[in-house]
Amino acid sequence: MASMLLAQRLACSFQHSYRLLVPGVNETAEYNSGYSHPALLKLIQQPQNASMFVNRPALGILPPENFVEKLRQSLLSVAPKGMSQLITMACGSCSNENALKTIFMWYRSKERGQRGFSQEELETCMINQAPGCPDYSILSFMGAFHGRTMGCLATTHSKAIHKIDIPSFDWPIAPFPRLKYPLEEFVKENQQEEARCLEEVEDLIVKYRKKKKTVAGIIVEPIQSEGGDNHASDDFFRKLRDIARKHGCAFLVDEVQTGGGCTGKFWAHEHWGLDDPADVMTFSKKMMTGGFFHKEEFRPNAPYRIFNTWLGDPSKNLLLAEVINIIKREDLLNNAAHAGKALLTGLLDLQARYPQFISRVRGRGTFCSFDTPDDSIRNKLILIARNKGVVLGGCGDKSIRFRPTLVFRDHHAHLFLNIFSDILADFK
Amino acid sequence: MASMLLAQRLACSFQHSYRLLVPGVNETAEYNSGYSHPALLKLIQQPQNASMFVNRPALGILPPENFVEKLRQSLLSVAPKGMSQLITMACGSCSNENALKTIFMWYRSKERGQRGFSQEELETCMINQAPGCPDYSILSFMGAFHGRTMGCLATTHSKAIHKIDIPSFDWPIAPFPRLKYPLEEFVKENQQEEARCLEEVEDLIVKYRKKKKTVAGIIVEPIQSEGGDNHASDDFFRKLRDIARKHGCAFLVDEVQTGGGCTGKFWAHEHWGLDDPADVMTFSKKMMTGGFFHKEEFRPNAPYRIFNTWLGDPSKNLLLAEVINIIKREDLLNNAAHAGKALLTGLLDLQARYPQFISRVRGRGTFCSFDTPDDSIRNKLILIARNKGVVLGGCGDKSIRFRPTLVFRDHHAHLFLNIFSDILADFK
Repeated sequence: MASMLLAQRLACSFQHSYRLLVPGVNETAEYNSGYSHPALLKLIQQPQNASMFVNRPALGILPPENFVEKLRQSLLSVAPKGMSQLITMACGSCSNENALKTIFMWYRSKERGQRGFSQEELETCMINQAPGCPDYSILSFMGAFHGRTMGCLATTHSKAIHKIDIPSFDWPIAPFPRLKYPLEEFVKENQQEEARCLEEVEDLIVKYRKKKKTVAGIIVEPIQSEGGDNHASDDFFRKLRDIARKHGCAFLVDEVQTGGGCTGKFWAHEHWGLDDPADVMTFSKKMMTGGFFHKEEFRPNAPYRIFNTWLGDPSKNLLLAEVINIIKREDLLNNAAHAGKALLTGLLDLQARYPQFISRVRGRGTFCSFDTPDDSIRNKLILIARNKGVVLGGCGDKSIRFRPTLVFRDHHAHLFLNIFSDILADFK
Repeated sequence: MASMLLAQRLACSFQHSYRLLVPGVNETAEYNSGYSHPALLKLIQQPQNASMFVNRPALGILPPENFVEKLRQSLLSVAPKGMSQLITMACGSCSNENALKTIFMWYRSKERGQRGFSQEELETCMINQAPGCPDYSILSFMGAFHGRTMGCLATTHSKAIHKIDIPSFDWPIAPFPRLKYPLEEFVKENQQEEARCLEEVEDLIVKYRKKKKTVAGIIVEPIQSEGGDNHASDDFFRKLRDIARKHGCAFLVDEVQTGGGCTGKFWAHEHWGLDDPADVMTFSKKMMTGGFFHKEEFRPNAPYRIFNTWLGDPSKNLLLAEVINIIKREDLLNNAAHAGKALLTGLLDLQARYPQFISRVRGRGTFCSFDTPDDSIRNKLILIARNKGVVLGGCGDKSIRFRPTLVFRDHHAHLFLNIFSDILADFK
């Protein structure tokens, strides 16, 4: 009865408030500021913004008058360390595709040195052949998800249904650490597991160089999201970054799912505490527009090398500027850290009480998840929760993941935990 | 002096009217209904639409309540012949990437027959290897432009700067007819040229099948746009469509630039007069959202095979529904045919008077273009025109192309022709 009342309160809040109160199914359906925030509704009602919403420019050649200023107020105000260059894109896949292209250009330009494009390169590239189209590769991790267009898809290895029947590239794939939980009980095993994966990364770089499929870059998510919320230690990422530097490979951090504040920092890679965390960093989803940041030395040497017609959408950037204001004004990064702690503590408690249903509780900020025994139980739990007004999402084979908005607070965590505790108590 | 006054009138109209009066530089900067059409401005002011503009759903799983109805009013109301299935995408490249993926899945499913995915396929696809990732190819044409993500880019062959340094696929590339103008003087030569290209298409299909890089589909633009506004006859396309059918290859028509009405028909392929014009057709740019139509038999056999988070943006579809209303209400397809005739006639007249500067005048509807002697003269002409208030665009090596909005009328053509005639008279 108590949980019914809570569910009613949730449903009620869901309809009448601009704040999304339940951990949502999907990271994009959840704006960082919650749905229909009054500040955003006000934006579209302002006559000076009307043109931005109804007209769509070819952004790379005809940006709106105030576009640079709007970028300073929005994306550039949260530029990650060392990456001052920015380009916007229409979606996450395009962001990763163009980040990969930027890396290939940078790598080739290192090899080429001072000379320009050779006639042979200019001619062979038109027919998809080397040396114009070099046989470079990108190293990715098993379990990764970086998008579904054909370049990205060659680095995606989360589920067969995403990849089957689509031609791909022979690019190296390293194992991603499979950590044992609770972490404090498996310190040594987990260190060994991470060392094994890092060793394999180096072996693959050497092997693919010998195969003449030189690894131009490494792509990695700070938390493998679609692949099952797989975490690795900050130390693992620091060492991986070093390996990339040592071998002259670009280091691309994909923050499409992790970026925007849900881990308690604006970008998840900030947890690593590095001064030089990456060469290129992609974003999308909660950022409302796709795009990527990169170091100055990754700037292409000519216009139209990284380009497309729309290059994103300035109206999304207008909204994002306001969302970033809200995040700062309402101290939502600290809130995500705090509410995330309440959620994680509650999940650990449920795990202790229902070890037959819940294991491997893990998370950073509100970016939390746990495993269930199998996908059938997982899907049943998601369905029951939905019918009680709680929208949950699955990831990997048997995990349940949390992706609430940044306005998710401690009391929302408790609301959820109470309902879910009742669900588990009744679960057969 | 006369041209200065005209330029002033153009500039004036440009600022104060919602109608774009000059042939514009870029097809996406030109909305079909002209800039800031009052009907579109009204749309965003309606309170019931506010949520659509400030919230962005994960369209594939959580579409807005009225989304199907809005699709019926917009894209489905202009579905091309035989292609009843529709999926929206965020941009043109993603549209072509996903259309290519749809074709690969369809082709593999033909080969596979009734059986499901094999265990070997499910396992090998995760590591980018055959048979899970088959070694299929797509046949494209030299001079084509189909986008810049890595799948599309393997079918793009317009300019080296788009392709250089990016790894690619060994896929077949056929020559596209290089027609001689005026067409009526070179009937036989042009027929031979088209026959030569078609023969090469068939040869490549056979050759790549032997190489075990089976051609799953053919991709072609009704007019090669970025590559230089290269036209071929309707007969060429009818025969090409037959070749695709004969060899069991999917036929993908890329209407990203040509679609939306500028050729005088809503889709340029309608000029071919075929009952079965294509299996898949992509669109973007003037359609305000990307996406593709396809035949029912190309529907993937499982969810999440063609999928991404945003799958376009329903707010663009809301605008598009209104734009399609405007096109119908204001009879803008017939207008494009009529104004295009005025433009083409005027260009032919300028070609007769200034053969040293203008050659190969060609066009369909307002989708017109001509060649200049070289890129240096071309770029000078574009610059002089711009300084007189006329925005022109280049394509190919030395062509100037026209991509006005659908509200471009006869008198706009005459305004332009007068200004450009003066430019040519003074040109040194």
